[in-house]
Amino acid sequence: MKIEPRTLPGFMELLPNEQIKFNNMMEKIKKSYEKFGFLPIDTPIIEMADVLLAKAGGETEKQIYRFNKGENDLALRFDLTVPLAKYVCEYYNDLSFPFKRYQIGKVYRGERPQKGRYREFYQCDIDIIGDGELSIINDAQMCLVIYNTIKEIGFDNFTIKINNRKLLNGLFSQLDLNNKSVEVLRIIDKIEKIGKENVIKCLKDLNIEDKKINEIIEFIEIKGTTDEKLEKLKNLNFEDELFNTGIEELEQVVNCIKIFDIPNSNFMVDLTIARGLDYYTGTVYETFLNDYRELGSICSGGRYDNLAEFYTDKKLPGVGVSIGLTRLFSKLSELNILNEKEQAISKVLVVSITDNINIAFDVANKIREAGINTDIYLENKKIKAKFKYADRLKIPYVAIIGEEEEKNRTVTLKNMETGEQKELNLDDAIDILKN
Amino acid sequence: MKIEPRTLPGFMELLPNEQIKFNNMMEKIKKSYEKFGFLPIDTPIIEMADVLLAKAGGETEKQIYRFNKGENDLALRFDLTVPLAKYVCEYYNDLSFPFKRYQIGKVYRGERPQKGRYREFYQCDIDIIGDGELSIINDAQMCLVIYNTIKEIGFDNFTIKINNRKLLNGLFSQLDLNNKSVEVLRIIDKIEKIGKENVIKCLKDLNIEDKKINEIIEFIEIKGTTDEKLEKLKNLNFEDELFNTGIEELEQVVNCIKIFDIPNSNFMVDLTIARGLDYYTGTVYETFLNDYRELGSICSGGRYDNLAEFYTDKKLPGVGVSIGLTRLFSKLSELNILNEKEQAISKVLVVSITDNINIAFDVANKIREAGINTDIYLENKKIKAKFKYADRLKIPYVAIIGEEEEKNRTVTLKNMETGEQKELNLDDAIDILKN
Repeated sequence: MKIEPRTLPGFMELLPNEQIKFNNMMEKIKKSYEKFGFLPIDTPIIEMADVLLAKAGGETEKQIYRFNKGENDLALRFDLTVPLAKYVCEYYNDLSFPFKRYQIGKVYRGERPQKGRYREFYQCDIDIIGDGELSIINDAQMCLVIYNTIKEIGFDNFTIKINNRKLLNGLFSQLDLNNKSVEVLRIIDKIEKIGKENVIKCLKDLNIEDKKINEIIEFIEIKGTTDEKLEKLKNLNFEDELFNTGIEELEQVVNCIKIFDIPNSNFMVDLTIARGLDYYTGTVYETFLNDYRELGSICSGGRYDNLAEFYTDKKLPGVGVSIGLTRLFSKLSELNILNEKEQAISKVLVVSITDNINIAFDVANKIREAGINTDIYLENKKIKAKFKYADRLKIPYVAIIGEEEEKNRTVTLKNMETGEQKELNLDDAIDILKN
Repeated sequence: MKIEPRTLPGFMELLPNEQIKFNNMMEKIKKSYEKFGFLPIDTPIIEMADVLLAKAGGETEKQIYRFNKGENDLALRFDLTVPLAKYVCEYYNDLSFPFKRYQIGKVYRGERPQKGRYREFYQCDIDIIGDGELSIINDAQMCLVIYNTIKEIGFDNFTIKINNRKLLNGLFSQLDLNNKSVEVLRIIDKIEKIGKENVIKCLKDLNIEDKKINEIIEFIEIKGTTDEKLEKLKNLNFEDELFNTGIEELEQVVNCIKIFDIPNSNFMVDLTIARGLDYYTGTVYETFLNDYRELGSICSGGRYDNLAEFYTDKKLPGVGVSIGLTRLFSKLSELNILNEKEQAISKVLVVSITDNINIAFDVANKIREAGINTDIYLENKKIKAKFKYADRLKIPYVAIIGEEEEKNRTVTLKNMETGEQKELNLDDAIDILKN
């Protein structure tokens, strides 16, 4: 009896042409992170459950893949931040601070599968961890990295939106809503999705007075340019230390960003940005593709005071952002806006139409020595099948070797897109392939 | 109460300097596979247990990480071959054959942890899958890929050893040992580890007559050059069809390899190579670093008639090899023979010794635009701490910007290895960094 080969729902599995595009996108993100000096780490996918769940709870705990093996209570990582916290504590003495690390890897959440939601997905994270303290300039630098990375992926029309949690928390403190701040932040965070009316409704459900709700809405709706917003925030004259630190930090970050020559069109202060996670304590980021707002934020993160408070008394402040690559890729793929040119591994397929494979191998090896990825077709099939293979793999050139070419020590190079073909000596063919 | 941050035994976790070396090795393998036109795929780490275990049994089944989530019986992949079989069947109609794929990813085996054994480790696999048939030339091509890949990793003194299962199976058939062939293959496979005397002992334990044992030992001990061995095999005049097909195939593979200009010193026929896995049916490969024989085979594989017989009636013959990267890296690291130059992500650390970060950021960005990975030190620390950071991260250069440099629009570039430093205009500094 045969077993039906099948893949679990919620697990992305791509055909090679799509996988190549996916890998190219991942490679661009990686290269961009490395351009800024972030160091790679690679933590296990399986961890002790108590280590992974030290601070989790609620939804996370429900979604986790957790199981026993022997006497061990194990779990699959659900993000790359908890493993980073573990890593920094475990190797604290061997690391140099600020510790700038990137990690690109799969994480697991056993959610109910639905369109656009994955149970296994790649996160591409960068974080900068300070030992005791970490300059606010790093918060601005994060914007520079986001800016460069999204440009590298191939987009120009995007906006990095920043805010500072201290502003919202300062406001809540003013309104005597400290004990509801986590819930209120989560509700505000959804304004883009659910709209203002629903935000008001949700706040009412929390038994917040209308007057306070109005103040919150008025606050997050403060309009104007980045400079005007900062000016209006100052003019509120809140006598709240946290709030005023928030203004100061936001202003410092904005000033740095101006120095970095990030275009105004790619950056703004948005007071509605709250982020759902409760560990952010300062700057928060979201990034939107303006032509594809339906994707939601494609690169988000923030500043936190204590990376690893569940493991250590050491103060380890940090700032980081994450790109949810699997979801991003799947959405862009759906929208059909991925670069179609990036679908082949090989630049050329070498095809012999004689029985003599020596020369074909020799040609293939010489092309490879020039640094060009080269496939060779070895099966005894009709020439049509060989071209079909190149066509389906989107290999841009076929190098044909027949009796004539063997005699002349040449190849006939066919451009698969234009159909043009030409007999060339190998060096000239290699020059074209290098183009 | 704090949770102790800890990593499970048997799971490799590296410090950044080591991780960089590891990633470089992985990148070289990947680039080499792509050079030959292999296509990337990326299958889930979690699969349905019945799919993953369709053909497993014995040790594999005991070592597997298996668990329930909701109503699903799940398991973590223990190799990349079973997922390949699943993938090829699932997407059969969308793939082009021969399907040449590579996959580099983590696999899981819950073994008792011991030195050099990992529960989570990377495999770097290539396979070529035919639809119905697959030319024997692919078996030779596999040697070419192994040869190039091991060279790329940085070794010259290695030997690819090949054999053909049909020879051993033909011999067993001659000796009327067909029903014990799997066990005998496994025993012979261990000869390198346990020695000839123990092989004889194990064969005796299987109740094989001394005469037959002698014939087996005589056979696997056939000596000489590759050509002499082939000659001696032919002179045995076994009238066994399987055996004679084996000789033919081995000869074809050897002839191709000669055409490929793989040096004689990097290749040999070795009749003791059996491979433990029972699905190989033809050519088998092992690869040894001659200066580090204690590592065992670092790249192994073989030809199989049916990749996916547990899922489909389609005949899908293939040939593939695998590098166990985690184990290889860990052994090479232990032996201290990894390239020490490959330990940094950044080529240069930009350090400002004034309060003016604008120019430092401007310099860093200009260096990055030249394609050079560049870190910048932003914390308000003493200059000594900044140099220590560069030193610990093995960053080869530091670009210092003080008042003098700000005024002159220059940087002082310090070579961290020689200690040499020089004030340069930025373009000249970039030229040196590009070197």
